[in-house]
Amino acid sequence: MEFAFYSGAARSAYISGFTDGEGTFSISFSKRPKLKTQIEVRPSFSISQHKRNLDILKEIKDYFKVGGIRFSRRDQNYKYEVRSIRDLMKSIIPHFKKYPLKTSKARDFQIFSEICEMISANHHLNKKCLVEIIEKAYLMNESGKRKYKKVKLLRLIAR
Amino acid sequence: MEFAFYSGAARSAYISGFTDGEGTFSISFSKRPKLKTQIEVRPSFSISQHKRNLDILKEIKDYFKVGGIRFSRRDQNYKYEVRSIRDLMKSIIPHFKKYPLKTSKARDFQIFSEICEMISANHHLNKKCLVEIIEKAYLMNESGKRKYKKVKLLRLIAR
Repeated sequence: MEFAFYSGAARSAYISGFTDGEGTFSISFSKRPKLKTQIEVRPSFSISQHKRNLDILKEIKDYFKVGGIRFSRRDQNYKYEVRSIRDLMKSIIPHFKKYPLKTSKARDFQIFSEICEMISANHHLNKKCLVEIIEKAYLMNESGKRKYKKVKLLRLIAR
Repeated sequence: MEFAFYSGAARSAYISGFTDGEGTFSISFSKRPKLKTQIEVRPSFSISQHKRNLDILKEIKDYFKVGGIRFSRRDQNYKYEVRSIRDLMKSIIPHFKKYPLKTSKARDFQIFSEICEMISANHHLNKKCLVEIIEKAYLMNESGKRKYKKVKLLRLIAR
């Protein structure tokens, strides 16, 4: 199969359509006792695909010019992922502002971009702002699983 | 959330991108003892979504101007589906020829469109052609489930 791709606005719109189906915007949290806030915040934009669709992930990586592709042994899929806050702010967020999502993922993206802006301004190092980030993040991805209950994270910060 | 959609080629490309993630092209078979071939062939293009994304299905139906949306109690999802061979030939197939899929679904679509052309020319009423349709159809949707094993269908036709 030849792999001529769309160009211009059609290419951008195709990628937003594909992401509306297959992409994930997530904010995860990890315990980091050495941090003043006790908690690390990690934003991630990702798209997972079976290995037969590795080409489309490469095409998307070429388009955004950031992020990486790796094989996840856990679910036997390839995953394109962008975690760097700089790359998210520079490439991913502007794209989806210009070529919006149309499913309920649009709401996840809205929250995601608000949180990324807060992180970019270093507000996540401030306990009060981190509480706000956690409250927002737990409104995302209704059907997703969470490592920690919200109340547990909020208790850690309050220490 | 306001629901302004893309326009022109970007709208078409968005829909192909979304379909690459979420759409299904399938050819199913049913036993029909009254038919000379014993077997009915049914093509279907569909996209299923949780009810929170019903709006996008309506938008896609508006775009294609064919098919219907119904609630599937089995998987608690809404499904946009086009089954009429006339509508598939007139609206769905030309769209995906002009705005191609990019994942392995492109191969499913290729086979799907070949089979629809055969059905459209009434070749599915001819036993020899029906065998060819079955052989092609069983190359589609690697991960999908089938009601009948291929050998069982071929045996029915040979009666």
